[in-house]
Amino acid sequence: MIRKLNFSAGPAALPEEVLKQAQEEMLDWHGHGLSIMEMSHRSKEYVSVAEQAEQDLRDLMQVPDNYKILFLQGGATSQFSMIPMNLLRDKKTADYINTGVWSKKAIEEASRYCNVNIAATTQHNNFTSAPSQDQLQLNPEAAYVHYTPNETIGGVEFDYIPQTGDVPLVADMSSTILSRPIDVSRFALIYAGAQKNIGPAGLTVVIVREDLLGQTLPGTPTMFDYAVHAAADSMNNTPPTYGWYLAGLIFQWLKRQGGVEGMQAINQRKAEKLYQAIDQSTFYANPVAIANRSWMNVPFTLADAALDKLFIEESEQAGLLNLKGHRSVGGMRASIYNAVPETAVDSLIEFMQHFERKHVENK
Amino acid sequence: MIRKLNFSAGPAALPEEVLKQAQEEMLDWHGHGLSIMEMSHRSKEYVSVAEQAEQDLRDLMQVPDNYKILFLQGGATSQFSMIPMNLLRDKKTADYINTGVWSKKAIEEASRYCNVNIAATTQHNNFTSAPSQDQLQLNPEAAYVHYTPNETIGGVEFDYIPQTGDVPLVADMSSTILSRPIDVSRFALIYAGAQKNIGPAGLTVVIVREDLLGQTLPGTPTMFDYAVHAAADSMNNTPPTYGWYLAGLIFQWLKRQGGVEGMQAINQRKAEKLYQAIDQSTFYANPVAIANRSWMNVPFTLADAALDKLFIEESEQAGLLNLKGHRSVGGMRASIYNAVPETAVDSLIEFMQHFERKHVENK
Repeated sequence: MIRKLNFSAGPAALPEEVLKQAQEEMLDWHGHGLSIMEMSHRSKEYVSVAEQAEQDLRDLMQVPDNYKILFLQGGATSQFSMIPMNLLRDKKTADYINTGVWSKKAIEEASRYCNVNIAATTQHNNFTSAPSQDQLQLNPEAAYVHYTPNETIGGVEFDYIPQTGDVPLVADMSSTILSRPIDVSRFALIYAGAQKNIGPAGLTVVIVREDLLGQTLPGTPTMFDYAVHAAADSMNNTPPTYGWYLAGLIFQWLKRQGGVEGMQAINQRKAEKLYQAIDQSTFYANPVAIANRSWMNVPFTLADAALDKLFIEESEQAGLLNLKGHRSVGGMRASIYNAVPETAVDSLIEFMQHFERKHVENK
Repeated sequence: MIRKLNFSAGPAALPEEVLKQAQEEMLDWHGHGLSIMEMSHRSKEYVSVAEQAEQDLRDLMQVPDNYKILFLQGGATSQFSMIPMNLLRDKKTADYINTGVWSKKAIEEASRYCNVNIAATTQHNNFTSAPSQDQLQLNPEAAYVHYTPNETIGGVEFDYIPQTGDVPLVADMSSTILSRPIDVSRFALIYAGAQKNIGPAGLTVVIVREDLLGQTLPGTPTMFDYAVHAAADSMNNTPPTYGWYLAGLIFQWLKRQGGVEGMQAINQRKAEKLYQAIDQSTFYANPVAIANRSWMNVPFTLADAALDKLFIEESEQAGLLNLKGHRSVGGMRASIYNAVPETAVDSLIEFMQHFERKHVENK
């Protein structure tokens, strides 16, 4: 077995030691004679796994006691509806910051439930930056402010947490959660699809301040009511038990890496060396404003787009997988989430420099 | 490693050879150098796995071409809302048959969206039978008729498919799907949480007639619109990729067992010998009408309820897990889904007879 280097944007690379542990435990969890996948979610064994995972996430992110952590299904896309359905309460308007593809999807869905005020957009520069605090046109009557701290496709990341006064701040952290410490108390609600930094697809983590729960729009499905899940410790119905278990293994792995503080140092080094390699070359380019370059998703283009196909082919032959950019932006994208080791970034840079030399010499 | 015998109602036993295959492929799927869990759902490798799973399910159940098969999230509980939200269309009323706990949950949620006509209920006999066709008070103006062919908790199974004329028939088959052949063309919509006969929790299969799609109640979340999922081949957003893959392995395993025809023979034998053992004893009892006894979930009580705790303890010591009945009905329950081999039922019967002898002699 040769494990290759996986730069997929999601579902994405998982830590090899976590996969090995899951593999070892697959048929017999801790000597109980069955797979964790075969256990009732209400068994004391499974509940202990679920609770430990929640506690570990709470520790890692230093989630305050007045926040619930929910383990849900449906992905960030379900959250796009659940957020207005739960957080509008008696208001009719919400503020959204538009920084790219995922912001736009959130806006489109929210527009079905309320008046969306676009507090800022970077469409004018083709979503290659985040707006600054003083560019935000916030409505003090908004039910909440929604933003996307990291745009997975554009590779644009906020370098600050917006100040929204008393208006609750909501963040789609799907592709940045757990990549570094954040101050959870600055947020009303944080959500993240698991399939980047948390675990496998099919699990969605929501961290929500308790006082915001309990009022939904008429017609909200029971499964879209945060209060129902909070009251049932995310077991109103059968949760995605295996994904939750794997997330727990990853949280324990993160603790062994020094927690989010440890990941911050590694992730910063990974990103800096990759952007440096891009910037030092005239062969590769990244269009994003320096201050807003994502630590997790690094899109880059080749000066000669005719070489794109060859780049993908040769990188795959070199064992570097899933570097093709999203169809909406083209070029390349290296997603370098927590589970992508620094050595994989080193190998990528080495390959990029080798590819460049070959094709510059050939000219 | 000693694998025990698992009679859990769900999440439930999975075929050992499927777990072994998943274990072998965990770190390196078919020599590609990564886990299937780490693959983009849009990669050609993953799409081929997903499509094969769908085709295998279509083959197994002989799903006609004018039906879509959807691989969703959220469990049957989400379906309780999605069904009225998608199938009411211009109507205001739906018929529901009430045969127990799961019927009631479906009714409660549907009542939030429409007038529910209870077409029949067996509450009078504490849900120990299914109503007969001539007991159904069907409303010809209903948008659809909903029923629960197998009640997982009560162990009550319909021995016929209701005739509903032109009114679409909807069935929660969570705990009976794939246990035997059924005529899909008799149904408008079939749904099933995966965690009994299909695979791990966190995946929900919906089989729906295409002409019913495309009209939802105002305010229906995009992720609750069957037409959206149908148009995107269940990849409107990231699906639960690992669960879908495992379901595919199980569908292939089912084919190797002779398909649903093969399972029918095995399941019938398993159920008959267990009910026979119960009926031949005065120590054990099952309250369900003979014609409506479930092949999948076999609840039984001990004549002396004071022995319940000991039965559970000793059965666990004998390697028979999860025989405790649901808290709402007490007693015992053996769920004997497809993945529970006939030898496990033999072992259960042997234990039951041994336990009975010991406690009858002791008197």
